[in-house]
Amino acid sequence: MLGAEPPPRLGRLTGRMRIEYADEATLAGLLPAADVLLVWDFASRAVPRAWPGEGPRPRWVHTASAGVDHLMCPELAASDTVVTNARGVFEGPIAEYVAALVLAMAKDLHRSWELQRAREWRHRESQRVAGTRACVVGSGPIGRAIAGTLRALGVTAALVGRSARAGVHGPEDLDRLMARADWVVSAAPLTPATRGMFDERRFGLMQPSARFVNVGRGQLVVEEALAQALTNRWIAGAALDVFDHEPLGRDSPLWELPGLVVSPHMSGDTVGWRDELGAQFVELCELWLAGRPLPNVVDKRRGYVPGH
Amino acid sequence: MLGAEPPPRLGRLTGRMRIEYADEATLAGLLPAADVLLVWDFASRAVPRAWPGEGPRPRWVHTASAGVDHLMCPELAASDTVVTNARGVFEGPIAEYVAALVLAMAKDLHRSWELQRAREWRHRESQRVAGTRACVVGSGPIGRAIAGTLRALGVTAALVGRSARAGVHGPEDLDRLMARADWVVSAAPLTPATRGMFDERRFGLMQPSARFVNVGRGQLVVEEALAQALTNRWIAGAALDVFDHEPLGRDSPLWELPGLVVSPHMSGDTVGWRDELGAQFVELCELWLAGRPLPNVVDKRRGYVPGH
Repeated sequence: MLGAEPPPRLGRLTGRMRIEYADEATLAGLLPAADVLLVWDFASRAVPRAWPGEGPRPRWVHTASAGVDHLMCPELAASDTVVTNARGVFEGPIAEYVAALVLAMAKDLHRSWELQRAREWRHRESQRVAGTRACVVGSGPIGRAIAGTLRALGVTAALVGRSARAGVHGPEDLDRLMARADWVVSAAPLTPATRGMFDERRFGLMQPSARFVNVGRGQLVVEEALAQALTNRWIAGAALDVFDHEPLGRDSPLWELPGLVVSPHMSGDTVGWRDELGAQFVELCELWLAGRPLPNVVDKRRGYVPGH
Repeated sequence: MLGAEPPPRLGRLTGRMRIEYADEATLAGLLPAADVLLVWDFASRAVPRAWPGEGPRPRWVHTASAGVDHLMCPELAASDTVVTNARGVFEGPIAEYVAALVLAMAKDLHRSWELQRAREWRHRESQRVAGTRACVVGSGPIGRAIAGTLRALGVTAALVGRSARAGVHGPEDLDRLMARADWVVSAAPLTPATRGMFDERRFGLMQPSARFVNVGRGQLVVEEALAQALTNRWIAGAALDVFDHEPLGRDSPLWELPGLVVSPHMSGDTVGWRDELGAQFVELCELWLAGRPLPNVVDKRRGYVPGH
């Protein structure tokens, strides 16, 4: 297991699996003898560095995260090792978090909070959310949950995925959908195809009244391009929960960008989430020990669990 | 018409009704000769003061607001003058606003905003909204819209009205529902029966983890009792959009109460709301001029439009 603190719920495995705890320094030494690797510390980049090029290696890697970008490397992708992720844990929380951001921006809650601190009573008109249009980029379970929650609020939400299928637009529709959206929500996995996809050109397509939300991965966004779009009022606002470098440094200009709401990579982390992640791993272990097929298997070439 | 600025959309009445504009000083002099009174300035308390005790008076009073507490007086209640309100304009916006506040409190957005200003990256766990319980007090169109939006987010929402009926709890259930709610939302009309209903005893019933939201009228709440409940951590937080005295004075202690979110009576006021209110009045005028029955007729004894 890679992670600084032991996950909850692993007690149920006592006597059935031997668990060794690795940090970035010891991981490479432990991997050849391990059958299973649990990547508990999703912020670590140690797996690609420590992954054995050849020879013995874990037959199964599970990551306590939705994304797998932090652990994939060509050797792991080429191997017969099975990779699974935490599908099922983060969808609902992240969808609620996006709804919170969308509503907060529409209702100007942040400005109200500033006025409250200044003890100023200043009535403003706010915006309706019902009847607006969202473009949700990422058609996996998280993107679909986001679209579902926005639709429940009366928003017309279009999903954009890697390829067109029922209820999902292909990448060829992205520019057109972004250009007419009131909300562009980034919830895509980080892959070579998606890295930097939100760039100067794409922010330039957006309506001046539109807003951008990123709960996917920081590297999906060219941060300088977003900064430019906000500073020059190409778009009305943005909210970032993920960043190119995390934690965001104190000297980052993003903290004070006009119209930008910053939060510390917490959209999916509701009370009890570590418990759920631990219990999910134990559940998968039961299947694995019984020799049964695992759910949540990642397509290692694509970088996510292929779905509907 | 009572109001400082002329409402939009009244041009359609040109040549069909003579419109005179009154302020608080001139209202009493104009009322006896008026057939219709439009109360456009819903913050004014001039109507009860200016209402003719006997003799000629308007046959119809329309208020560009949901509540009628600001214009009712015993003489108006006893008269055969018809009172109508702006039912239909504010429901959706207020329901979205309550959802915004509930989600913002669950996701700790205000704290994130403070941390952003301090350039501090501090991850916290937030709360799920789905699966929580709300008690919505006020079973008119606004209360029902709030309950509907919260339910769309997965919240179990109970409605409490003046009397029990299908889908609505009577006042006898209020204490029990408040005691187990995660969210208590006040959206009742202000009447003698509801004034001060949220008092020390009722805040004392709430769970320490619960939060209170008022989008009804300030006088529904005993503000000192809410201040005490927040200061002593009887409840986890509150959001007030309406206050006993509006605008809230700069020296009010409410601005800095721990866990209190203050906004300036704007929950229902989305872009275009004045337009909608003007258009609604014109629509009602068409009916009135044609001698047809008006919708949105207020039960003057109860103080609201009786509904389902």
